Amino acid sequence: MTMTTAPVTPVPVQAPVVPASGALRPLGLDESRITGGLWAEKQSVNAAATLGHIGRRLESEGWLPNFDLAAAGSLPEGRRGREFADSEVYKWFEALAWEIGRGGSDELEQVFRAAVARVAAAQEADGYLNTMFGREGQRPRWSDLEWGHELYCAGHLLQAAVARARTRPGSDDGLLEVAIRVADLVVREFGPDGRDAICGHAEIELGLAELGRVTGDDRYTAQAKLFVDRHGAHTLRDIEHGRGYYQDDVPVREAQALRGHAVRANYLSASAVDVAVDTADAELLAALEGQWARTVARRTYITGGQGARHSDEAFGEDWELPSDRAYSETCAGIGSIMFAWRLLLATGEARYADLIERTLYNVLATSVADDGRAFFYSNPLQQRIEGSVPDPDETVGRAATSLRAPWFSVSCCPTNIGRTLASLGAYAATTTDDGVQLHQFAPGEIRTTTGSGARVALTVSTAYPADGEIRVRVDEPGDYEIALRVPAWAEGATLDELPVEPGYARVRGAWSPGDEVVLVLPVAPRVTVPDPRIDAVRGAVAIERGPEVWALESIDLGADVGGAALVPGSVRADGGGIVAEFVVRDGSAAEWPYGSAQPATGERRTAALVPYRRWGNRGSATMRVFLPLAH
Amino acid sequence: MTMTTAPVTPVPVQAPVVPASGALRPLGLDESRITGGLWAEKQSVNAAATLGHIGRRLESEGWLPNFDLAAAGSLPEGRRGREFADSEVYKWFEALAWEIGRGGSDELEQVFRAAVARVAAAQEADGYLNTMFGREGQRPRWSDLEWGHELYCAGHLLQAAVARARTRPGSDDGLLEVAIRVADLVVREFGPDGRDAICGHAEIELGLAELGRVTGDDRYTAQAKLFVDRHGAHTLRDIEHGRGYYQDDVPVREAQALRGHAVRANYLSASAVDVAVDTADAELLAALEGQWARTVARRTYITGGQGARHSDEAFGEDWELPSDRAYSETCAGIGSIMFAWRLLLATGEARYADLIERTLYNVLATSVADDGRAFFYSNPLQQRIEGSVPDPDETVGRAATSLRAPWFSVSCCPTNIGRTLASLGAYAATTTDDGVQLHQFAPGEIRTTTGSGARVALTVSTAYPADGEIRVRVDEPGDYEIALRVPAWAEGATLDELPVEPGYARVRGAWSPGDEVVLVLPVAPRVTVPDPRIDAVRGAVAIERGPEVWALESIDLGADVGGAALVPGSVRADGGGIVAEFVVRDGSAAEWPYGSAQPATGERRTAALVPYRRWGNRGSATMRVFLPLAH
Repeated sequence: MTMTTAPVTPVPVQAPVVPASGALRPLGLDESRITGGLWAEKQSVNAAATLGHIGRRLESEGWLPNFDLAAAGSLPEGRRGREFADSEVYKWFEALAWEIGRGGSDELEQVFRAAVARVAAAQEADGYLNTMFGREGQRPRWSDLEWGHELYCAGHLLQAAVARARTRPGSDDGLLEVAIRVADLVVREFGPDGRDAICGHAEIELGLAELGRVTGDDRYTAQAKLFVDRHGAHTLRDIEHGRGYYQDDVPVREAQALRGHAVRANYLSASAVDVAVDTADAELLAALEGQWARTVARRTYITGGQGARHSDEAFGEDWELPSDRAYSETCAGIGSIMFAWRLLLATGEARYADLIERTLYNVLATSVADDGRAFFYSNPLQQRIEGSVPDPDETVGRAATSLRAPWFSVSCCPTNIGRTLASLGAYAATTTDDGVQLHQFAPGEIRTTTGSGARVALTVSTAYPADGEIRVRVDEPGDYEIALRVPAWAEGATLDELPVEPGYARVRGAWSPGDEVVLVLPVAPRVTVPDPRIDAVRGAVAIERGPEVWALESIDLGADVGGAALVPGSVRADGGGIVAEFVVRDGSAAEWPYGSAQPATGERRTAALVPYRRWGNRGSATMRVFLPLAH
Repeated sequence: MTMTTAPVTPVPVQAPVVPASGALRPLGLDESRITGGLWAEKQSVNAAATLGHIGRRLESEGWLPNFDLAAAGSLPEGRRGREFADSEVYKWFEALAWEIGRGGSDELEQVFRAAVARVAAAQEADGYLNTMFGREGQRPRWSDLEWGHELYCAGHLLQAAVARARTRPGSDDGLLEVAIRVADLVVREFGPDGRDAICGHAEIELGLAELGRVTGDDRYTAQAKLFVDRHGAHTLRDIEHGRGYYQDDVPVREAQALRGHAVRANYLSASAVDVAVDTADAELLAALEGQWARTVARRTYITGGQGARHSDEAFGEDWELPSDRAYSETCAGIGSIMFAWRLLLATGEARYADLIERTLYNVLATSVADDGRAFFYSNPLQQRIEGSVPDPDETVGRAATSLRAPWFSVSCCPTNIGRTLASLGAYAATTTDDGVQLHQFAPGEIRTTTGSGARVALTVSTAYPADGEIRVRVDEPGDYEIALRVPAWAEGATLDELPVEPGYARVRGAWSPGDEVVLVLPVAPRVTVPDPRIDAVRGAVAIERGPEVWALESIDLGADVGGAALVPGSVRADGGGIVAEFVVRDGSAAEWPYGSAQPATGERRTAALVPYRRWGNRGSATMRVFLPLAH
């Protein structure tokens, strides 16, 4: 066997998160590619349908034309959209940049360049760039840090520019330069000698941290740290939801769990990991790990979804996890992936990859429709009534429908899905000095180099999660360790036919082309019992298969699922699916619903379940994930 | 025995609701008086403390001074409070009027007159009276019917004027004249030839209907009917919560259940009963009875509380009744009492009085503190964390604390409690041609005349609900029927030692002074099982005693109640209280809360329960009404 010792590549890692240090080294989109299965299909639809759908909506909603108006000096007249409308344009830029990076078409490149030029034209001489503030007839710059979203928008611009800089270094499109001018303005305005303030919606911290990494300019890193550290200092006004809503209640390093607005909380936490890692702040990192652990143990849905409350799109208290009113915003799920991914890179612990997988399958894949043109904003675990069908030409309220909708008045989720799917390959694997780690399982290819220079070339074949076999074939010779994640639920997993425990199953070899490592995860249906302190689902169980949560829809039951109870012991695999038996009571009710014990009688029916991510695909239905047990 | 045939008195009935017809005739505050027990104490504290507390807050918050500014022509500068601030002044007027009516002090009369004069001075030449709209620098009149609350405020003014006209007919304070000018303006602006519009918050309908009754001017009744009938015509804009929020989704007579904002829904429904009764619209009345029945069977808390959602202060879907996030706004409970009372008068059915009793004991009496100076806005059935103590000088958000607070930025509840307690005697009993009906049980006196002229003079003695014996003594001779409500929960009740069924137990007699009728209701603790479709409380039971719901507080358990499970069969009366045994688990948690069945082990403790209405009286605590069963 011949060892090829490749130098560490000088080109940027084509990944959203590239920390200066950590347990694991991220791979770029060119190093880790998904080539088949659910996620390749999702990426393909994202490229072919979603990105265009978003672009058309950004035009028709006026959110991209706002920049033309700004450039022409004709704002504020005619400006459309909410305070954060600019950010959707930037998240779309980020999605385009990743998609172009992983091989997108010339057409996408032209679309990207044309749109960037329109945004660049709106930038003011001092670097300020926001269509909502600062002009005659508008509110002054930085005058509404609680709700104005100026720094939030800027953060997304920075993340977009990072994506572009990493995938097309040296491109003359100008986005990086625009972003740097914005970042410099932010540092001037909000630096150590500037305004002692933060944005009501964390995000600028993420953009600055990553811009610092891509440019090597540590002023941006320092500014990110400053913003993170200023949380909890009560620089934002108190509001009815309390300052916890925007994580300005207690300092980041003193908090016990994520709280308040679930997207804000996750974005801030993710950026705090960036800061902790880049400034070697072990205490901060430990605090964030503890907050993550408590949040996952007590404030997270079985789907990985986060945010229990509609009223403020926020985490509830510990154990407050209603199924029917679960907010579980798609963007909070994506934020949770961002937070967990950074902790995974920092620590190398499998639990973070476990949550990412769960959230990918049950939040992100649930939100986006098969055709890539409709989305769930909120992802409840129980649907009590059949919803109305959204008009494809209308913009709907965020949680107003039980069916996927093409666009929202607050439309953060479609662009967030777009950028996440386009960069998804980067979340599948990492390297260390000594080996390669496979965190997510999909048919794909890995072409990279370990820290110590071993060339890694692997092909993954699998029909996971429908089938539990994950086959990793070595394509080039090399001496390194292959680590495969064994999820926490995977009791009875084997690696090359030997039992392995949850965590990472590791095998070291002097590999030759054609060598194979085979992980087998158990994917028989599981009946999962929730902690009894989750009052909302007491006396009920969920059905899971691999990383997938399954659900019961009225379409399969032939009756409203609200009156259905699962017959214990009746859950079984059935071909590629799962079926179970239910006792279905009629829809009648007593005059007063609080009395003495009522007999649980009803008709017995067998019904198929569906993966939760596929619910609502056949029209209006009632649905539930947690199934009460018949007694 | 001598029969005294008294003519029907020509003075107005001193009651909030006096329909033209119906199964039952309401009594005035002078005819039905509460003289002891919980409700007399609440009334006394209301008069001595709450009404003054409200008056001081209306001054210090600027809501009453707004009228001075209006009179001086110096609005809008300096106006304070939300759109509905005027209405709190009017609800306070109504409370003062009832309190003065039932014998309030000269001091209250002076307070009332002085404040009325300040409001009257702000009325414009054409009758318009609102401090928020119509002046230079304000939005035009009627320009924001969705959120402006102009007609809502006017409705409360009319109700206040009705209260005064019925308790001090012919008084020269001017309130009735002010109200009539407002009502005439409303009829001109919104009559059959005026704007085809409604207010986003129902209330004007109630005021107009009652003003029509008190003045005999049927233009007001017709206008109330017009407003009721216009609901569902989509004259209000669609909003994120949908038009159901303000009951503009479907016509009143086509709705299936109460929905949307729970105060709006109850106010509208109550006024629709007024319209149905006064226009002999049997179809509308039947529709409202059906909606009430469905709402009570599927959308009402065991406390009588209504409104499951914080996000829009609204009813949830059928069976959506979370304990922890129960909104159960105090004003929605009062609205429900208003709706049920009108249906009781119209139909004479005991179920309406049952719900009123449940709501009085478990919502209204829960909201107001013992000292009458602090209130719950929201009445959740589970408190997961110990709340912070509200600053007595601060104005808090409506649902921001777990302890009673002195005032709120939206402070509808204190004034609503004030007017309801001051007029509570009127809800205790009614008459028919043939007899008298006792709906609520408190020590008290009834002095009235049946429709056929029999003189009724009764004294009620009871320690209910601590004790189940209700003793009704006849004070003057008379030949009529005495009907006593037997609540639906009262299995085993006796009247004069004979078994009686839920409904009304009736006994007719040619009564002599000193005759007694004795109703005995069973008040042993009951273990109540909820309908299994109420997912939020599956596997849990509630403890009730008589009309009272009881709760477990951490103070009595010596541990967070979140981890407590009730030992079946352990609930027992203990002196004047109730105790039970619990299994209390420690506060630890698994890394991931969804797994296989976990052993329910823990320490066994005996703890006292408290009536739900008394929770939170000993400082911060966690609390739960529904107690999971230990297995």
